[in-house]
Amino acid sequence: MNGAESLVKTLLGAGVDVCFANPGTSEMHFVAALDRVPGMRCVLGLQENIVTGAADGYWRLADKPACTLLHCGPGLANGLAGLHDARRARSGIVNIVGDQAVYHRPFDAPLTADTEGWARGASAWVRTSTRAEDVGADAAVAVQAARTSPGQVATLILPSDSSWNEGGVVAAPLPVPAAPQADPHSVHQVARLLREKKNVLLLLGGLALREGAQVQANRIAAATGAKLMAEGSNARIQRGQGRLPLDRVPYVNEQAVAALKPYEHIVLVNAKEPIGFFGYPGKPSQFWQPGTELHILTRYEQDAEAALRALAEELGAPMVSMPDPGPRPEAPRGELSPEGLARAVAALMPEGAVIVDESVTYGRGFFPQTTAAPAHDWLQNCGGAIGYGPPVAVGAAIGAAGRRVIALQADGSAMYTPQALWTQAREKLPVTTVLLSNRKYQILIGEYQNVGANPGRTAMDMLDLGNPDIGWVQLANSMGVEAAQARTLEALGDLMAQSFARPGPFLIELLI
Amino acid sequence: MNGAESLVKTLLGAGVDVCFANPGTSEMHFVAALDRVPGMRCVLGLQENIVTGAADGYWRLADKPACTLLHCGPGLANGLAGLHDARRARSGIVNIVGDQAVYHRPFDAPLTADTEGWARGASAWVRTSTRAEDVGADAAVAVQAARTSPGQVATLILPSDSSWNEGGVVAAPLPVPAAPQADPHSVHQVARLLREKKNVLLLLGGLALREGAQVQANRIAAATGAKLMAEGSNARIQRGQGRLPLDRVPYVNEQAVAALKPYEHIVLVNAKEPIGFFGYPGKPSQFWQPGTELHILTRYEQDAEAALRALAEELGAPMVSMPDPGPRPEAPRGELSPEGLARAVAALMPEGAVIVDESVTYGRGFFPQTTAAPAHDWLQNCGGAIGYGPPVAVGAAIGAAGRRVIALQADGSAMYTPQALWTQAREKLPVTTVLLSNRKYQILIGEYQNVGANPGRTAMDMLDLGNPDIGWVQLANSMGVEAAQARTLEALGDLMAQSFARPGPFLIELLI
Repeated sequence: MNGAESLVKTLLGAGVDVCFANPGTSEMHFVAALDRVPGMRCVLGLQENIVTGAADGYWRLADKPACTLLHCGPGLANGLAGLHDARRARSGIVNIVGDQAVYHRPFDAPLTADTEGWARGASAWVRTSTRAEDVGADAAVAVQAARTSPGQVATLILPSDSSWNEGGVVAAPLPVPAAPQADPHSVHQVARLLREKKNVLLLLGGLALREGAQVQANRIAAATGAKLMAEGSNARIQRGQGRLPLDRVPYVNEQAVAALKPYEHIVLVNAKEPIGFFGYPGKPSQFWQPGTELHILTRYEQDAEAALRALAEELGAPMVSMPDPGPRPEAPRGELSPEGLARAVAALMPEGAVIVDESVTYGRGFFPQTTAAPAHDWLQNCGGAIGYGPPVAVGAAIGAAGRRVIALQADGSAMYTPQALWTQAREKLPVTTVLLSNRKYQILIGEYQNVGANPGRTAMDMLDLGNPDIGWVQLANSMGVEAAQARTLEALGDLMAQSFARPGPFLIELLI
Repeated sequence: MNGAESLVKTLLGAGVDVCFANPGTSEMHFVAALDRVPGMRCVLGLQENIVTGAADGYWRLADKPACTLLHCGPGLANGLAGLHDARRARSGIVNIVGDQAVYHRPFDAPLTADTEGWARGASAWVRTSTRAEDVGADAAVAVQAARTSPGQVATLILPSDSSWNEGGVVAAPLPVPAAPQADPHSVHQVARLLREKKNVLLLLGGLALREGAQVQANRIAAATGAKLMAEGSNARIQRGQGRLPLDRVPYVNEQAVAALKPYEHIVLVNAKEPIGFFGYPGKPSQFWQPGTELHILTRYEQDAEAALRALAEELGAPMVSMPDPGPRPEAPRGELSPEGLARAVAALMPEGAVIVDESVTYGRGFFPQTTAAPAHDWLQNCGGAIGYGPPVAVGAAIGAAGRRVIALQADGSAMYTPQALWTQAREKLPVTTVLLSNRKYQILIGEYQNVGANPGRTAMDMLDLGNPDIGWVQLANSMGVEAAQARTLEALGDLMAQSFARPGPFLIELLI
């Protein structure tokens, strides 16, 4: 057995059975092994951020890792932004990078690069398998690393001779480490805080935003009067009927500071302290007040649901029903607006939809309008590398097998990764993309104005996406995705409803 | 004056007056400074490999650096493949990466990444300007580093507070270091070799492929019987009427070994020893015979033309006229073939055209058919990170102001960087793209067959680009580029001729 075959068999044995791939010459023995060993679903991406972003989306819905297949250092580099966002979302990925044969590397051939060096900035674990005999064992460790709570990017670099040489040994799966439990002392301290203090906020992140943890957080809030909020960017929030109507920490500096101002105590539950995306002259990096105290109930890797349950029990908080969000909105009519779009999504989405949100400026108010929608998952960009939406929609659709994915997608961001549409078409994925076409980098025009002026001609050359306008219907069609334009809420609603009735992808260019 | 303004003024003072940009929030003060200080041409790319690839193409034609503007570590990461190819082409680039404010970095905000670490693998020079006062001086050094022979990627990282803080100081341009001269001892040794030995090959790379150096190499070959050849991948060869009809070292292992087999001595002139792109089981990494001796006339950074002139004079080689390549081909008719395409390009290209060659498998035989074309420049992918063609065409068109660019572009490669078409349309660049649509990764199907079998279904899922077919006419139109299909040499010729008569870009989808 060669190294490549031991790799495929080890991955399958460990439950990794989806491979997002953009292979090259040095990966041909791995591709051949995938041909010979049945069981791996191979999904081609035409650019590497499609591959890594899809693996991120897959983890968020499947709660288990896919593997990738990338080609040498530059192929890895093309997927680093997707890995960066995955790292920030704490997604587990077995990131496999084929590379030069060990003996060929010293010749510094054209594609030779510092593959390990580039991998490190986006990976929790990096290893190069330099012998066929080691590939299976290294792959088993990679899967374990990817599944280590809360989820990690594990990069396994596979020189082509480790792949083609004989001597491969299949490795048994290693145990998936359980999420560590919260320190009982932290639970006691937070319980005392909640008994003694008013103005306490529980800031929920990561797995604290799943339904089971929300049920516990709701008990605590009902019993103590503590408020609940989600982080500004979240990998996956379970929302809609039967879930909490959580607000997020706002993106805009002043709004975030105002939102947190009432709280003298902020308890972090799988959440990071609330800080700004960027520094700005004369504005704070930290969103909480100077006198506010931060407390940690659980770190990212700890079991939030168990800690919240322990906390609720220590407080003697009774079980209470989840808040009633009121009736589902009717499909709205008339002029387009952010609120109208959000209400249309809430009115029309099928049960169990997955929302992939890269709506950027247009979408900042979508949350309040969608709390009465059917139960759904809402995915955000946690790393800030834009273009995350189209690839994550690919992976989410595969990870959530059969559920409708609704991608709320800004145009400027979509242009980083339009190739994802092709994969959506090839795999006939149930993805409805609502493409928000404002033909500019609206967020940057706002940021420029914050600098103290309106953009001049040179600046607008870099902030305006018109001239020429991008024709999203043509662009989607060119990659096999059906598409149409909408200019009103009625047209949007009609197209959404039609798309939900079809098995494959559809793109609605919304002229906002 | 803030740091950003000192940066713009320092760049302009050093002759850097084109900025390929994909800015973000942390770059807004730099964008504002570009607004206030006139003189910089700002060209927007919608993905970062467009930006870095354009800067590569610009250098190759303009022989001076452009600057880039990228956004934080992930924006840099998205442009690393373009920088990798530029590094291998030895192109000079002032690569500017905006980043988190120095004081904000410790908060590990979402976009924070190891920007310096990622930059190092693609840069000869990396520096972070941590104070506004240093920005001008650092920029002057960056330009000098970029212009250090033969050309280098110099990455200047600009935290946003270094950009917005007052205290900026404009720095005077630093001298551009002259290319070092060859060791006279090397010239003597090679002269003796050429007098005493038969079967000598001069392998030309880098600036040894410019017209002036070719004239000297031609003297030497005529006087000594030495043969001349170009490296396998070259940043820019001057070709056509009045230039040498150079062959390249073939890409395919066996063919390269056969091409070099006759030579007992290989003299490297700005060239690397001829090695394979990849290692293959049982095939050599080095293309020369075990008994063949390699000699170095000039290293990459040394002045090849001066060394060749000194060598010719030491040999007493008379000036001779350049070989006559014979009559220019007529425009061919009938069925498409690689030879027919090459002859059509040779027959129809305008004087002084720039060929950006990313034709991959289809283009391996283009060289012999185009030696009798008018004088032109031929650009290749030196780093092997595919998708280099569309962005390099952008930069080459700007660097070669007014000359027609003909991009011979494989479809699989083009899908890594299709956004370059939008920049071609916005800037109304005279780029004719001949899109070679075979709807598969043909190179990989060949490589798979080398492994010893035909690809099965799983493998073809990763090697076939059909299902769905990509509609290149629609794709180009969607980004504002006029386009049409051709299935015959006549149709190709008609469309090429029409496109050359227009000022802007055009794409011909050639169904091969």
